Amino acid sequence: MAPKIKIGLVGAGRMGKLHAENIRSYIPYAEIRIIADLQPELLESWVKGSGAVPLVSDYRKVIEDPEVDAVLISSSTDSHACIINDAAKAGKHIFCEKPVDLSLSKVKKVLAEVEKAGVIFQVGFNRRFDHNHRAVKRAVMAGKIGEPHLVLITSRDPEPPPLQFITGSGGLFLDMSIHDFDMARYLSGLEVEEVYATGAVLVDPAIGEAGDIDTAVITLKLTGNVIAVINNSRKAVYGYDQRVEVFGSAGSVGNFNDTPSTIVISSDSGICSEKPLFFFRERYKQSFIDELKDFVEAIARDRKPLVSGYDGLQAALIAEAARKSFVENRPVRISEIEQAAGA
Amino acid sequence: MAPKIKIGLVGAGRMGKLHAENIRSYIPYAEIRIIADLQPELLESWVKGSGAVPLVSDYRKVIEDPEVDAVLISSSTDSHACIINDAAKAGKHIFCEKPVDLSLSKVKKVLAEVEKAGVIFQVGFNRRFDHNHRAVKRAVMAGKIGEPHLVLITSRDPEPPPLQFITGSGGLFLDMSIHDFDMARYLSGLEVEEVYATGAVLVDPAIGEAGDIDTAVITLKLTGNVIAVINNSRKAVYGYDQRVEVFGSAGSVGNFNDTPSTIVISSDSGICSEKPLFFFRERYKQSFIDELKDFVEAIARDRKPLVSGYDGLQAALIAEAARKSFVENRPVRISEIEQAAGA
Amino acid sequence: MAPKIKIGLVGAGRMGKLHAENIRSYIPYAEIRIIADLQPELLESWVKGSGAVPLVSDYRKVIEDPEVDAVLISSSTDSHACIINDAAKAGKHIFCEKPVDLSLSKVKKVLAEVEKAGVIFQVGFNRRFDHNHRAVKRAVMAGKIGEPHLVLITSRDPEPPPLQFITGSGGLFLDMSIHDFDMARYLSGLEVEEVYATGAVLVDPAIGEAGDIDTAVITLKLTGNVIAVINNSRKAVYGYDQRVEVFGSAGSVGNFNDTPSTIVISSDSGICSEKPLFFFRERYKQSFIDELKDFVEAIARDRKPLVSGYDGLQAALIAEAARKSFVENRPVRISEIEQAAGA
Amino acid sequence: MAPKIKIGLVGAGRMGKLHAENIRSYIPYAEIRIIADLQPELLESWVKGSGAVPLVSDYRKVIEDPEVDAVLISSSTDSHACIINDAAKAGKHIFCEKPVDLSLSKVKKVLAEVEKAGVIFQVGFNRRFDHNHRAVKRAVMAGKIGEPHLVLITSRDPEPPPLQFITGSGGLFLDMSIHDFDMARYLSGLEVEEVYATGAVLVDPAIGEAGDIDTAVITLKLTGNVIAVINNSRKAVYGYDQRVEVFGSAGSVGNFNDTPSTIVISSDSGICSEKPLFFFRERYKQSFIDELKDFVEAIARDRKPLVSGYDGLQAALIAEAARKSFVENRPVRISEIEQAAGA
Repeated sequence: MAPKIKIGLVGAGRMGKLHAENIRSYIPYAEIRIIADLQPELLESWVKGSGAVPLVSDYRKVIEDPEVDAVLISSSTDSHACIINDAAKAGKHIFCEKPVDLSLSKVKKVLAEVEKAGVIFQVGFNRRFDHNHRAVKRAVMAGKIGEPHLVLITSRDPEPPPLQFITGSGGLFLDMSIHDFDMARYLSGLEVEEVYATGAVLVDPAIGEAGDIDTAVITLKLTGNVIAVINNSRKAVYGYDQRVEVFGSAGSVGNFNDTPSTIVISSDSGICSEKPLFFFRERYKQSFIDELKDFVEAIARDRKPLVSGYDGLQAALIAEAARKSFVENRPVRISEIEQAAGA
Repeated sequence: MAPKIKIGLVGAGRMGKLHAENIRSYIPYAEIRIIADLQPELLESWVKGSGAVPLVSDYRKVIEDPEVDAVLISSSTDSHACIINDAAKAGKHIFCEKPVDLSLSKVKKVLAEVEKAGVIFQVGFNRRFDHNHRAVKRAVMAGKIGEPHLVLITSRDPEPPPLQFITGSGGLFLDMSIHDFDMARYLSGLEVEEVYATGAVLVDPAIGEAGDIDTAVITLKLTGNVIAVINNSRKAVYGYDQRVEVFGSAGSVGNFNDTPSTIVISSDSGICSEKPLFFFRERYKQSFIDELKDFVEAIARDRKPLVSGYDGLQAALIAEAARKSFVENRPVRISEIEQAAGA
Repeated sequence: MAPKIKIGLVGAGRMGKLHAENIRSYIPYAEIRIIADLQPELLESWVKGSGAVPLVSDYRKVIEDPEVDAVLISSSTDSHACIINDAAKAGKHIFCEKPVDLSLSKVKKVLAEVEKAGVIFQVGFNRRFDHNHRAVKRAVMAGKIGEPHLVLITSRDPEPPPLQFITGSGGLFLDMSIHDFDMARYLSGLEVEEVYATGAVLVDPAIGEAGDIDTAVITLKLTGNVIAVINNSRKAVYGYDQRVEVFGSAGSVGNFNDTPSTIVISSDSGICSEKPLFFFRERYKQSFIDELKDFVEAIARDRKPLVSGYDGLQAALIAEAARKSFVENRPVRISEIEQAAGA
Repeated sequence: MAPKIKIGLVGAGRMGKLHAENIRSYIPYAEIRIIADLQPELLESWVKGSGAVPLVSDYRKVIEDPEVDAVLISSSTDSHACIINDAAKAGKHIFCEKPVDLSLSKVKKVLAEVEKAGVIFQVGFNRRFDHNHRAVKRAVMAGKIGEPHLVLITSRDPEPPPLQFITGSGGLFLDMSIHDFDMARYLSGLEVEEVYATGAVLVDPAIGEAGDIDTAVITLKLTGNVIAVINNSRKAVYGYDQRVEVFGSAGSVGNFNDTPSTIVISSDSGICSEKPLFFFRERYKQSFIDELKDFVEAIARDRKPLVSGYDGLQAALIAEAARKSFVENRPVRISEIEQAAGA
């Protein structure tokens, strides 16, 4: 039996804890070796229940730990670039939550650093590991629908995040749609060339006052004139709505939401089934486990991860193009954004 | 029992014959009184089997017939305006296939004539009478989904029309998407303010050589910042794909395709149900009957028809905006098109 | 164009009127020539609106009419045998509502008479003409599920018939399940050899007091050890529930109910679609038309009808076996019933 | 944190290993303390990979171990009674795979022993813990369908077990249908009073030569005249088919199979979704975990388990009644079986 991959966790908020618990419960060939968090005192009881790993406040302790093979970054977005930089220099493999950074030039810079260091770098696009989306991808790759013509993505949250989160998140395109931008590339196997984004404040005026939108439709022109279109809402009262469809020359493949059970109740008032699983923790539970399994396996076998830094960069470029398109109400080419981000 | 409404048919091509047969078989309180067609000699055997009504080559004979209550126009698009004009002047009620005309200024002119004459005028947006789309509309009107935020329309043909048809049709936006433009207005009860259209030739290069596209995604900004998005293809190998969804503050209502039967076969190779009804004749069979029933009823009761000339004009304006948007790759406002069409 | 088949209708109650209207509206190559009903005075206004055919009180007038090609019998069950007998002797083709008679020996006798006369005789097992059941049958015949092993039939009414109807109907097995008995034979292409029936009064005690049951499960042993099982209820609050499944060596084919539309409403309270079409008039609307079309076509082409007198007899034998099985709480063989009915 | 519940495993075949791995991976508050198996030498490598617990050949070593809180019995059926007896006398809690024993009098005897000892005793009816069946049960209990009238259970395996297994299994009713008998009681909350079973050899003649059947339909009369009906097949080529429906005075609740993903592929050949999860290991994966979680929790909290010895006995009585009914082709009352099994 090979030795376990030792992981240093940086940032033990909602996602960090979820990752730590997944590693502990479901990934026997990895372990959390050390945890850094800006407020370690809040984590003491949680850490005790989770195997009593050392807890520090300075992430550099994690990076300097010679036992640590890989760093899992789930701290706030503005700290990502710095930590990635240091971790890469220390030769640690890196798993980083999306988005890598709100600044495209920073993203480019740290990705260059990562490449120089030759470490494995994976971005947290967990949806690529979801069984339903993977099955669509597999069908497309297997030629079941011929050449792709259209990609349609419905992605709606059950409820908006807290207003303070919205302010720092970079907005709907960078926080929420970014997953869908990656999904469009993943499902089609194509690159995005141009973006046209429309948006509105229809769910909650306070979101508009915070400078963001809560509803959007984004059209992407992909290589070979394939068209993708995404619809987003911050609030679907019936739960997390996550469906995709790829339509092509030989047919179409789409998926539906998972539900807690398959029951159907037929009564005087209709024929009713259950609402979708509530939110990402429920719907994407297994994908969060599987993305880390894949990361650990990539390290163990010294192979490329299934989501690369390049994928992180592309999604960020699309998000920025969407933002600009929405503000200026015109289609925006990715090449324009790339140039602006610096050669 | 009231006397039957007497209808003069102008143009007995594919659609004209369908309408005539529907009236004969399913609308007992109406009858075809006279038929005009440019090639009456081709229709003799069909007319004999259909009740032996008089057959003429000049549509003016129809309009001059004092027995005729209403004119049903299903001749070629370029003849619509002229016939409407004459029929209105003669005080005949008018049912006209879409589009009213390819020229917006002509549409405006004949609608003014119709209004002056005070006759009933209905455009052939048959999908408003489809049981599945109607059920969505009813749910929206009943407040089942709260305030609408998004309208999503999937509209794909099973096969492209003959190339010669494409040349004279005004193109995908005016020939095919026009139904979807009307559907967006119908389902939401809102007006379109701006259009952004993307398109591609992915089905058949010959369509591109004929100057048209075969694949499109069109985003519509509606009153109140509601967003609609339509995806079109000229060729869905699995059959006519006609689905809509309206998403709002209290939920979502969507529909699925009708199938020849509800059977499901479970075998070694999967769990399979039937393909959608093949094309418009099958899927919209009842809606073609019901739109004429409604037209006849509007005449009998002297009330407004459920699809007005205004609806025909709006759809044409949106189609023209879509065309312009696609050519110039920019969002186009309806007001811009209206102004260009002349005050 | 061949001359129309002329039909004499005997019994213009609920079903008789339905048949007459179907012939008038949907079967252009047939017409009702004369109508006999015990209470002609109640039918005058209906007859006027339906083409003003002659109306008599004595069914013999229908049979004696030399113009009449075929007799459509939808009078009360106890009058069927007599009318069939007379019609056969007069050389008229016969369509008779199920059941042919409550007495098996009478059924045998009149079928012998029909055979002697060489006329076409069809029993009103309309469900064989339903698009959903036909599609299952076609899949079975095409070998899609291999050799049949199991036939499962769910057949539930939305509401019980009036109590006075129950008294004269022969009971649930002969009035309601008889359709399902025929369906088991139709779908499998096999004969029933033995029956075990259980039943209960769960819907309404008054049904029990009237000597009947309202809930049943009936197991049929078919040729080759294939097993069929039927579940019946007089009251499914969500509407007419008519589903069948045939399971075999290479898979399974089943069907679902038809609904008024395909809409799905997703809201805070679940994901809901429409209830099934309410009852037989809605669900089996087209099958009532198609069974008569087939009858008329059988006459016109001088071929066997798709439902024969033999089918009527078999269903009646099974119903009687079910009744006896329920009363004596033991499996009953069809051969036992046949012998009792007389050689 | 409470000390872990220590479990001694008796029988490490297919099911025993599955249970051991589930405890190790998913039940942090329990652990396997010792394993007994008749062929310990075959288990050495597996045990090493599973935490290196002591391995013995004599189950009495497990029972004598003072550290062991509970015994998990997944040895061959003929050894169950003896082990239960000894374990109960030693005051160990007991989880036993179904069936408890093929002899009803033995079942009764060991259950009496268990009761005397006052230990917790749970039978392995894992399906009660399945999310889909549980959701049906919850809907019934919540009154969503009113009073139950009918229970319908479809339970088909994807492939028959090896012939040597069939010989020792007690036959289809005791090996396979027993789960469905328990399900009928579970879903309805009612007791079975009478059984009528039909069966056939349609899948494989070798099964018949081994003295068993492979296809069955079993009707159960429950308390209050409620009727349940089960259909079984040893071979559904499309996978494990596990659906139930409860129909009642206010509606119906049913469930569908789980599938690997929710994708639907629309192509020229139809609209196809995935086959059900292949077999019990896939479909009931979580239920095997949850039944043990519940067992451990019942011990920890000193409460009754959700499946009792009484439930095991009832299912065995129904299975024996089904066997007798099939052999003698008559309905058999449970009371008759109970009396034969001895007071």
